[in-house]
Amino acid sequence: MDHAYAVVLAGGSGTRFWPLSRLRRPKQVLPLLGGASLVRQTVERLFPMLEPRQVFCITAREQADLVRRELDLLPPDHVIDEPVGRDTAAAVGLAAVFLRWRDPRAMFAVLPADHFVDDPARLQADLRTAFAAAAEGALVTVGIRPRGPSTAYGYLQRGPREGSVHRVLRFREKPDLETAKGYVASGDFLWNAGIFVWSAESILAEIERRLPALAASLKVVESALGTSRLPTVLAEEYARLPRISIDYGVMEKASRVLMVEAAFAWDDVGSWSAASAHRPRDAAGNTLEGACAAVDTRDSLVLSTDPKHVVAALGLDGFVVVHTPDATLVCPKNRADELKKVVEELRRRGFEKTL
Amino acid sequence: MDHAYAVVLAGGSGTRFWPLSRLRRPKQVLPLLGGASLVRQTVERLFPMLEPRQVFCITAREQADLVRRELDLLPPDHVIDEPVGRDTAAAVGLAAVFLRWRDPRAMFAVLPADHFVDDPARLQADLRTAFAAAAEGALVTVGIRPRGPSTAYGYLQRGPREGSVHRVLRFREKPDLETAKGYVASGDFLWNAGIFVWSAESILAEIERRLPALAASLKVVESALGTSRLPTVLAEEYARLPRISIDYGVMEKASRVLMVEAAFAWDDVGSWSAASAHRPRDAAGNTLEGACAAVDTRDSLVLSTDPKHVVAALGLDGFVVVHTPDATLVCPKNRADELKKVVEELRRRGFEKTL
Repeated sequence: MDHAYAVVLAGGSGTRFWPLSRLRRPKQVLPLLGGASLVRQTVERLFPMLEPRQVFCITAREQADLVRRELDLLPPDHVIDEPVGRDTAAAVGLAAVFLRWRDPRAMFAVLPADHFVDDPARLQADLRTAFAAAAEGALVTVGIRPRGPSTAYGYLQRGPREGSVHRVLRFREKPDLETAKGYVASGDFLWNAGIFVWSAESILAEIERRLPALAASLKVVESALGTSRLPTVLAEEYARLPRISIDYGVMEKASRVLMVEAAFAWDDVGSWSAASAHRPRDAAGNTLEGACAAVDTRDSLVLSTDPKHVVAALGLDGFVVVHTPDATLVCPKNRADELKKVVEELRRRGFEKTL
Repeated sequence: MDHAYAVVLAGGSGTRFWPLSRLRRPKQVLPLLGGASLVRQTVERLFPMLEPRQVFCITAREQADLVRRELDLLPPDHVIDEPVGRDTAAAVGLAAVFLRWRDPRAMFAVLPADHFVDDPARLQADLRTAFAAAAEGALVTVGIRPRGPSTAYGYLQRGPREGSVHRVLRFREKPDLETAKGYVASGDFLWNAGIFVWSAESILAEIERRLPALAASLKVVESALGTSRLPTVLAEEYARLPRISIDYGVMEKASRVLMVEAAFAWDDVGSWSAASAHRPRDAAGNTLEGACAAVDTRDSLVLSTDPKHVVAALGLDGFVVVHTPDATLVCPKNRADELKKVVEELRRRGFEKTL
């Protein structure tokens, strides 16, 4: 597709997949769904609709080397590093000025690097629909049909159909449970997965309207593109940018947003339990990887990354056991979302160096 | 006490405490109850009633060095090694001829090395009672008041009182559950803990009556004591001995056995769940040892023996997690008795070297 690009957002850091993920080894460079790393799967999912020359990735400077290694299928300069993380509005704005500089007619899809998608062909078909609308100047988002009244996602209120897409009546922030139940019962609300498609021109115009300070910084950055001043300028401008998401800062206020309803199955890979849900499993529902042995164990994820160490599970049901050379996690899957508590306890007990 | 000795039986091997115990590192040399190793706790429990010169230990040759290291409070020649394990009848017989050779009036208590005893003073008081009866020529056993209808122990049927002890009407082998319930309801049955007290003379006379082949071998061994022929003779005689326990081979058939009812709390340290039950615990019922961190975790045992590795537990209730440099076990406590299945699976999957 001419003038179509994709920008993978791989800026996160953190320990929600500790002990595999660490402060300096973020989840997107880990093979949490099995096989390739999340960021690489996100890129590969776009082929053959896009070619490597059409795919970019934005990440944090301290992770750029790791991400470049994972994305050796892209030209090295397609991994763009931000001096510091400033949330998605800044990342999207930077991508927009960069792509417009390379191709004034650039359109791009924004794809977070930590998603599960069951069927790349369906994703590509939905993105084609979105690109077609974006080519007309629209800001397009992809809505996910809710699997339940989740309070972990924002919602998109579906409006009238416009051709092969719908209008979005409104963006709704993460609701409480009662509200979420109402949304799901109505059938008119979809999850906001943070997947967007637009032209660089359109999103920059909207940023100009909604976040003029960011727009001003982006103009300064734009003037330095292709020059040796770029790193300095980026550092200066990022230092003054507020942290704000593209959803909250721009999309919720945009007057006209269109939505493609996803035909693919989707999940946010946000914790060990989500990662486990989408990995290949054996007949007992287990994912066993590395040197391990399981007896009378069901619905469990046992990962061992140290070939000189064996992990044995007996009688586990619905557990996560992750062993690395310097740290091991054991928890029931339904507690995996609370890993932050473990990280705090490790800090408190003086084990920061394992984080 | 004159002529009183103790013989600690530390012959076991195996993997019921894998991954801490290994084929070549048996449970008795491990600090499974916290603090000192099981064998050393068994010895220390006898002081000050006995002095080190009165305490002996019988173990297997391949474990003798480990056991001697654990028992550096005893003279080195007090750790007697059998060339091969031949169950308790042979071990008791060997101890008897050895002690009678050193002291013709020797009496000795037989104490397995893998028991929990809550109060050494009470154990010593009970042993004093038993030694007094043994001095009169009796074969004495110690009965444990059952905590429930266990099918894991043999039972002693209590007969009429004789002074400060009781007659044992009969030894009963490990019963089925219904039978065990009847035993416990009657109030007349106690657990056979395998703790005995007798004179060397009396038990050798009983072995002569019940196991004449063993008695014949013991006579050959006795003639070699104090000579350089001993190792060769022991190896030859042990090679032909059958495996038989002192309970089954001798005590069940003995015409007159007396019993002391234990005033101490007792348990067989036979699995991680038993070991865990008798270790010091924190307010949440946890035993956390080594580099570990636990969050929202109750009634669990988390052991880490590698100071360079941290084990984190989140949301566990009633679990065992044991981490060593080359192997980790995770299981619910109530499955810990099934560890043999794990060992088989490890063998099947080619991890024998961790056993």
